[in-house]
Amino acid sequence: MTPGVGDFLATQQTRLNLQLLSFADTERLGLCEEQSALDLLFKAGQYALSNGGKRVRPLLVCLSSRAVSNENPDAALDNLTYAIELIHTYSLIHDDLPSMDDDDLRRGKPSLHKAYDEATAILVGDGLQARAFELLADAPGLSAEQKIAMISVLSKAAGMQGMVGGQFIDIHATNSDMTLEQLQAMHSLKTGALIRAALALGGIAAGASEQQLAALDEYGTHIGLAFQVVDDILDVEGDTQTLGKTQGKDSEVNKPTYVKLLGLDRAKTEAQRLLEEALHALKDFGESADLLRDLARYIVERDR
Amino acid sequence: MTPGVGDFLATQQTRLNLQLLSFADTERLGLCEEQSALDLLFKAGQYALSNGGKRVRPLLVCLSSRAVSNENPDAALDNLTYAIELIHTYSLIHDDLPSMDDDDLRRGKPSLHKAYDEATAILVGDGLQARAFELLADAPGLSAEQKIAMISVLSKAAGMQGMVGGQFIDIHATNSDMTLEQLQAMHSLKTGALIRAALALGGIAAGASEQQLAALDEYGTHIGLAFQVVDDILDVEGDTQTLGKTQGKDSEVNKPTYVKLLGLDRAKTEAQRLLEEALHALKDFGESADLLRDLARYIVERDR
Repeated sequence: MTPGVGDFLATQQTRLNLQLLSFADTERLGLCEEQSALDLLFKAGQYALSNGGKRVRPLLVCLSSRAVSNENPDAALDNLTYAIELIHTYSLIHDDLPSMDDDDLRRGKPSLHKAYDEATAILVGDGLQARAFELLADAPGLSAEQKIAMISVLSKAAGMQGMVGGQFIDIHATNSDMTLEQLQAMHSLKTGALIRAALALGGIAAGASEQQLAALDEYGTHIGLAFQVVDDILDVEGDTQTLGKTQGKDSEVNKPTYVKLLGLDRAKTEAQRLLEEALHALKDFGESADLLRDLARYIVERDR
Repeated sequence: MTPGVGDFLATQQTRLNLQLLSFADTERLGLCEEQSALDLLFKAGQYALSNGGKRVRPLLVCLSSRAVSNENPDAALDNLTYAIELIHTYSLIHDDLPSMDDDDLRRGKPSLHKAYDEATAILVGDGLQARAFELLADAPGLSAEQKIAMISVLSKAAGMQGMVGGQFIDIHATNSDMTLEQLQAMHSLKTGALIRAALALGGIAAGASEQQLAALDEYGTHIGLAFQVVDDILDVEGDTQTLGKTQGKDSEVNKPTYVKLLGLDRAKTEAQRLLEEALHALKDFGESADLLRDLARYIVERDR
């Protein structure tokens, strides 16, 4: 990663992690004594949120906002970055469940249903999703119109026509043939929708025009797919320790991947092509979008 | 039920059921051909939504709105009644899962994870929650401020400090002692929060004052608890056929209930007391709140 986006990511991760640390701070939640049984639920949420994720989606909110305007200090985006990370985290918790991807590890630590239990994992996921919309509704410094636009975007991105739909197709794709078009359609829902929503949130907060939002959306479409192509490449080339998950797992359960459909070399070419498309989408933005450009390069050139 | 609220409920159920019937109408969802695998997910959602529920929460939205003002035609409340029923339905789907209450039947039909599978049930629930917030964000005829107020209320009611938290306490309460206060605290989250949110949505749509919203909230607190007390009484006195679920199930798994804590007679007295409190909360409303009053009586006097 270039120093620019790397530094920015580090600062932004620190901000977000501080927020996430307060998640289980039930003191300020106004629960009565009889509801103290909820402590464990909040602690489980805290556990899932402290899993050391890269926080790419919150970063996209900030970078998208900066690309459009420098007027929003990052603090104004706190509820937005938090909300998008909650949706992402909830989806990982549910995806890891035994009836879904059945993953015991998440970034090298026991996944939530292993550290706690399945019921708690389902409920924490459900609660994090609700909290994400609460954070958008209660976000300070934004107009009601801006917040409604964000909630409309995020709810569609998170739902059956977005992330949830993508996970559904993914699960049912095990041991079945999938064309390249179907694989792309699946990933555009499963990971692409939330990435594009993150960019839209940042753009809306900064007062982006329709044209700017469309450009950010196109950028998001391409980096989303690039992210997945590179994931598939790393799944073959990486080792378990670097990735923090079981290497080769997708291949083992006969999941469709870009590498299987295209071969390793063409998959790498495809990642480069998607990078070019992402950069092209930002052609009408000036230097303010340089960190977004750096991030696109990082996504394609990362080794984990 | 008195004819007034019964007729109204029937009309309103028909309206809502027509809406729910269109849920799986994927034509208008703009999905591409490669995403046709989602058909099954929408059909599963449709299955869960067509389960013949009483639709009490949507009814509360309409009755609350009418109590405050007659200016909102019921059609203006369509997105709100739909949204609240989606949240309720998603919670039933997740509650029925094997790792939660492990219920194979829901209103006499196989629960969603039995009719489909666990992964689909989890994802349908997740998708319905997102769709609920989408429906509020996209509701026609309301100001952005009204919609934000509603989303703020509903997200809190649905989340860890509300419905999800209540279910968490309920699960962990099996085979444990619970005081009456703890039982009430649990139910105030598990079912009360959403009932109160339904009343708030209707009130906000009709432009209720803070004082009116507080009165509706108090009414909701009492009918919510009354609903549960009566449920516990029916669980002992009712038969499986009338209830559409396994009678005596709560008692079997050693769940805390009002009947166990109070005895049958005192539980019945408590239901009457809660009814009186609910009616008292509406003292500043005129005839416009008569259907709400009828509903409170129905909740306490129903036999299923």
